[in-house]
Amino acid sequence: MAKRIVIIGSGAAGMTAASSARATDKDAEITVFTSEEHVSYSPCAIPFVLEGKIESFSSIIMHDPAFYRRERNIDIRTATRVRSVDADAKLIVLDDGSEHQFDALVMATGGTVFVPPVEGADLPGVFKVRFIRDGMDIQRALPSVRSAVVAGAGVIGLEMAVALRRAGKEVTVVEMFSQVIPRICDPDMAKEVQGHCEDLGIKFIMGAPLGAIKGPGRVTSVLAGKTEVPCEMVIMSTGVRANLELPNSMGLEIGPLGTVRASPTLQPYRKGRLVKDIYLAGDIMMCQSAAVPGPTMSQLGSTAVRQGRVAGINAAGGYATFPSVLSPWVSQIGELQVGGTGLSTGLADHFGVEVVEGYGAGLTCARYYRGGKRLIVKMIADRETHRLLGAQVVAGDDVNGRINWLTAAIMKGTTAEEFVSSFENAYCPPTSMVKDPVNLAAEDLVTRL
Amino acid sequence: MAKRIVIIGSGAAGMTAASSARATDKDAEITVFTSEEHVSYSPCAIPFVLEGKIESFSSIIMHDPAFYRRERNIDIRTATRVRSVDADAKLIVLDDGSEHQFDALVMATGGTVFVPPVEGADLPGVFKVRFIRDGMDIQRALPSVRSAVVAGAGVIGLEMAVALRRAGKEVTVVEMFSQVIPRICDPDMAKEVQGHCEDLGIKFIMGAPLGAIKGPGRVTSVLAGKTEVPCEMVIMSTGVRANLELPNSMGLEIGPLGTVRASPTLQPYRKGRLVKDIYLAGDIMMCQSAAVPGPTMSQLGSTAVRQGRVAGINAAGGYATFPSVLSPWVSQIGELQVGGTGLSTGLADHFGVEVVEGYGAGLTCARYYRGGKRLIVKMIADRETHRLLGAQVVAGDDVNGRINWLTAAIMKGTTAEEFVSSFENAYCPPTSMVKDPVNLAAEDLVTRL
Repeated sequence: MAKRIVIIGSGAAGMTAASSARATDKDAEITVFTSEEHVSYSPCAIPFVLEGKIESFSSIIMHDPAFYRRERNIDIRTATRVRSVDADAKLIVLDDGSEHQFDALVMATGGTVFVPPVEGADLPGVFKVRFIRDGMDIQRALPSVRSAVVAGAGVIGLEMAVALRRAGKEVTVVEMFSQVIPRICDPDMAKEVQGHCEDLGIKFIMGAPLGAIKGPGRVTSVLAGKTEVPCEMVIMSTGVRANLELPNSMGLEIGPLGTVRASPTLQPYRKGRLVKDIYLAGDIMMCQSAAVPGPTMSQLGSTAVRQGRVAGINAAGGYATFPSVLSPWVSQIGELQVGGTGLSTGLADHFGVEVVEGYGAGLTCARYYRGGKRLIVKMIADRETHRLLGAQVVAGDDVNGRINWLTAAIMKGTTAEEFVSSFENAYCPPTSMVKDPVNLAAEDLVTRL
Repeated sequence: MAKRIVIIGSGAAGMTAASSARATDKDAEITVFTSEEHVSYSPCAIPFVLEGKIESFSSIIMHDPAFYRRERNIDIRTATRVRSVDADAKLIVLDDGSEHQFDALVMATGGTVFVPPVEGADLPGVFKVRFIRDGMDIQRALPSVRSAVVAGAGVIGLEMAVALRRAGKEVTVVEMFSQVIPRICDPDMAKEVQGHCEDLGIKFIMGAPLGAIKGPGRVTSVLAGKTEVPCEMVIMSTGVRANLELPNSMGLEIGPLGTVRASPTLQPYRKGRLVKDIYLAGDIMMCQSAAVPGPTMSQLGSTAVRQGRVAGINAAGGYATFPSVLSPWVSQIGELQVGGTGLSTGLADHFGVEVVEGYGAGLTCARYYRGGKRLIVKMIADRETHRLLGAQVVAGDDVNGRINWLTAAIMKGTTAEEFVSSFENAYCPPTSMVKDPVNLAAEDLVTRL
């Protein structure tokens, strides 16, 4: 009999798990249950649709359920919530009470935008940026908005702020911390990004917790610290928390960061033992850092895809493991790109690791070549072992490749000295400087170690 | 007494050696002897000045000798040829017969464009692309040129072909091999590049050795195989050979590729023994491949800079070693970028290594994001060990970072399987696909191993 594989969740993790399970077992019966109506889209694209860099919300949907049925023999049940999972009886119960047996289950139920418990958070005019439906709601509401407040200056908040600003709105970003992109980006690099946003006409109220959202009837203003900001729209980009309802009801072990503990095979634990035939993928699961021993969050689409692959292979009877992560990230904020990988100095402090920082600055091409954009690189190494632990890049272009390059170096345990002596870079005047700012940052780092 | 450091050659290797020596020893007496008039420029920029992407030849000169004297206390003797070196007496003799003592010597005398021994190769209208002077000569000659022949379809030849085409010339590229960018690029990837050049209106005569350059008085046509191509200009981009006059006269050991054997400290050998206080850097020296055991050429500006650093540090009494190389390269050919690192399949054959190839195709950003450019990745692994040995990338943009990323992976001995399981990529719709074509190529490779 064909193996029955059930997947809960249709985000990047769930859909990749489904496709990887199919690639591993061509005969399995694969069913995806999702509370969403749309599947196979990248929520990371939402700000860029609103900014007009992507044609429409429908264009970010890669495939519809009919495609999966036809091309991959995967059955997708949209708008269908899973109420409970019985790991021992190997069945799930849907909201309508119907039951489905499984031989293997992938839980890719993702996370939910954390909304701080403030007055007025449920008023009309308050939006999240999580599902394509959220983006469509924001788009529909935009014409009647003159001023908007973005709560939370993480990358999604900043991308949204730029999108709203370019739609002609007055935009104020309210952030509890004293810097944008807190935690994963250090203040010195974050300052560059905030400055660029300010150049675009975005206002910031920093170090100000969201106090209250005021009505009546619908949003009319926001209290940020002691400042009241009139607005007709509030975007909640206040972080994502794992959906723990199902895991909690199943008695799965939850880690210190509020995510489900996972083995390298991506199986959860219950009372200290691996749960058989159940796999995790995406934002609900805990990751291990590849920079330092310790748990980490990796709420990234690219990570979800890699986890989905492992969970799908294992659910289908193959064997794959998921390693520790550096969680490289990149964001396009107006004309500026910013990215990072591994530890920031702030995170290193949190982990109790003493680090040294090195900097390199230059352009995205040779100095004399037309059209070069400014490029700043920060590299971070362990003071004791000299091992590279993290990096951040801010530039007008070409951040992504440099972040992947640095991620490879960190992942393989490279020291700053080894990076200087052995890591080559390709050079051509239109595409780089003969010594890339990455190389310059590594050399600077070595002089400070 | 201050240490007397003499450097022969003012290219990337020589000038970096001078600056690195100064950084290592602030009191040394550092003198650079060069037959050139201009120093501190990137010859890689010449085609792009001619193409109009760089303002002028003077703009590619980063610093003049006065800068080095003033800022780094480095004495540069331009237009001064070194006639001989006495390694035992530790002195050099200049063309005018004057002698200079040294305590340490860096030989960075580079290479010369190889001109095939054909009739008419010395006719007016025949140009090389090596020194800034060559570029200026070509620029001056251009107005009276209607048709040009580029001999040699390596990256410099193709960059020159594009520059001449964009200057409104009829351009024919003549290549002895059956593909462009032979040796370092495989035929499948090279075909993409040739196709793009043809789209720009450049003609190719492939598999045709340069027969003769005809006059009288100045170039009027070129014989390519059996085809006669009328032209008023011939660009010789037929490869570079190391300048071996000085090394031969000194009895230094020459390796199988016609370059001077070098120790990891970049010292040459004489009768099997290291030569004391003499260091090599740049195109004259032999490199070791980091992909396979064996000698390799690395005629790259970026390599020269890294060698210059090691030679300069050692000449000044510091200690540094130069490791084996993958020689990552990149080129901008019209709207297309092409790059590679490590072994091509052709080079692997040459080394007797059996390899497997994997391919990934996609865009430089998410499929639905406006302005994405086509991106093709080829990865090559050792069939036996599964270790990555090389990669090539062709795309409208963003090749450089991917080549550096892949170079890091190869340098650190990564297998194809490990790349798939452990190598993360940053993702944001404007800057990448959630699975980069590099990831897709690695996955494809694993299925073929």
